[in-house]
Amino acid sequence: MKSEIKIDPRYAETDQMGIIHHSVYPVWYEMARVKFCKDIGLPFHEIEQRGVGLAMVHMELNYIKPSRFGESIKVVTSLIEFTKVRMTFKYDVYNGLDELINQGITKLVWLDKNLKPINIYKAHHDIYCLFLEQLEK
Amino acid sequence: MKSEIKIDPRYAETDQMGIIHHSVYPVWYEMARVKFCKDIGLPFHEIEQRGVGLAMVHMELNYIKPSRFGESIKVVTSLIEFTKVRMTFKYDVYNGLDELINQGITKLVWLDKNLKPINIYKAHHDIYCLFLEQLEK
Amino acid sequence: MKSEIKIDPRYAETDQMGIIHHSVYPVWYEMARVKFCKDIGLPFHEIEQRGVGLAMVHMELNYIKPSRFGESIKVVTSLIEFTKVRMTFKYDVYNGLDELINQGITKLVWLDKNLKPINIYKAHHDIYCLFLEQLEK
Amino acid sequence: MKSEIKIDPRYAETDQMGIIHHSVYPVWYEMARVKFCKDIGLPFHEIEQRGVGLAMVHMELNYIKPSRFGESIKVVTSLIEFTKVRMTFKYDVYNGLDELINQGITKLVWLDKNLKPINIYKAHHDIYCLFLEQLEK
Repeated sequence: MKSEIKIDPRYAETDQMGIIHHSVYPVWYEMARVKFCKDIGLPFHEIEQRGVGLAMVHMELNYIKPSRFGESIKVVTSLIEFTKVRMTFKYDVYNGLDELINQGITKLVWLDKNLKPINIYKAHHDIYCLFLEQLEK
Repeated sequence: MKSEIKIDPRYAETDQMGIIHHSVYPVWYEMARVKFCKDIGLPFHEIEQRGVGLAMVHMELNYIKPSRFGESIKVVTSLIEFTKVRMTFKYDVYNGLDELINQGITKLVWLDKNLKPINIYKAHHDIYCLFLEQLEK
Repeated sequence: MKSEIKIDPRYAETDQMGIIHHSVYPVWYEMARVKFCKDIGLPFHEIEQRGVGLAMVHMELNYIKPSRFGESIKVVTSLIEFTKVRMTFKYDVYNGLDELINQGITKLVWLDKNLKPINIYKAHHDIYCLFLEQLEK
Repeated sequence: MKSEIKIDPRYAETDQMGIIHHSVYPVWYEMARVKFCKDIGLPFHEIEQRGVGLAMVHMELNYIKPSRFGESIKVVTSLIEFTKVRMTFKYDVYNGLDELINQGITKLVWLDKNLKPINIYKAHHDIYCLFLEQLEK
């Protein structure tokens, strides 16, 4: 499954080069993941209410073109790797002209309430199955 | 007592007007409060470790001049009101030329771990006394 | 006219008290102003393209209840004061249960490209008239 | 040359997991680059005053351990690749116990005022030479 989210860059996210600051994209990726979880029927705050968290372990971002305040951004998200302990999301960011302006991946591990890594297959089998179904081949 | 903190504006805090975005000042005020707590010998993370929190209930900010990336900012903080349940801090922000560029106040209430307001005089008398001593007349 | 915007709090906007950090509200107010401008037919980036800016000179925020990740926020914005050089917006922030959780105002002045205050009545009469029409009595 | 910067995590940078949010590290990397430029005698705002900018083209971050409000962070920065058009910085982030908690790299290209890539060797030979001297072998 591919999930999509529309984002209007905030004025506060611009910098004095007149573009959206590069540190904003990790936040957009996170919004895209949250939308992904909502789209598969398991809102992220419900995952947390079950005592499960996710920790970022690796992130890569490629900046192709700048984005600007006043245009509407689209992020397309897919799950490209998934194991019992870890998953990798891929993000394609498009500007108002539908040009690909940024691409990235994030690797996350499942955590319990004490921030210890868990095996989601064992700990919450339904969550494991739901995410596995979304894996892009 | 007056507490001082030096802050170097971050590039990410600039906006496309070429100045520090106005939403950054509440964060600088918070850094100034944290420095105040450190200066009186009670670091804020130690207050939290005792199960006590603070909630913002009112904030006012006056913007006099812009600040810019590349200059060093100074915030002078003082406690101007203090009761058993609430306190008011005042912040004077100076730019690299020592000009007053922003002034504000914040009113905060003491909370317990469940985010319920508490009477700090009753709950943690030593904290009450320590802050009371700092009150500017 | 009253303008409305829906905002989903971002995970990155939470703090270790488990609520949305108080410094996020000025950014939400700004998003609400940008939506206001869009709703009256004059997107803010078009105002800037005409060489006009706005500077924050005063902001007041009252925090009534916390907001949390996972709920949807609504901000209702109205223009409550308007002169040739300055305007005041009022913001009412509602949580997912439609409870008023925050209220604030911002005073802004019109600027030219060099960040000098201007008389918008003289400099851009059409912008002056458009905003004046929105004034809440 | 290795440059060092000390950073006190801000309360606003925590999230509801009780740790510093992962999106803060790109901002810390940027503060570390700005400190690097200051340490070699060419403050970043002076580079910009000469009409030169830098655009992020690639960033990678590895998160090893969380960081927390109340501890002091150290970032050690070095220049590990340098050509006429592009450079790569490496960042090692240490927590209050001097444990390595995060490692990353950023690739940046030189820009002119119109955000077009430039050859810094041709455009500003002194800047080229100064950075080249800092390259870690």
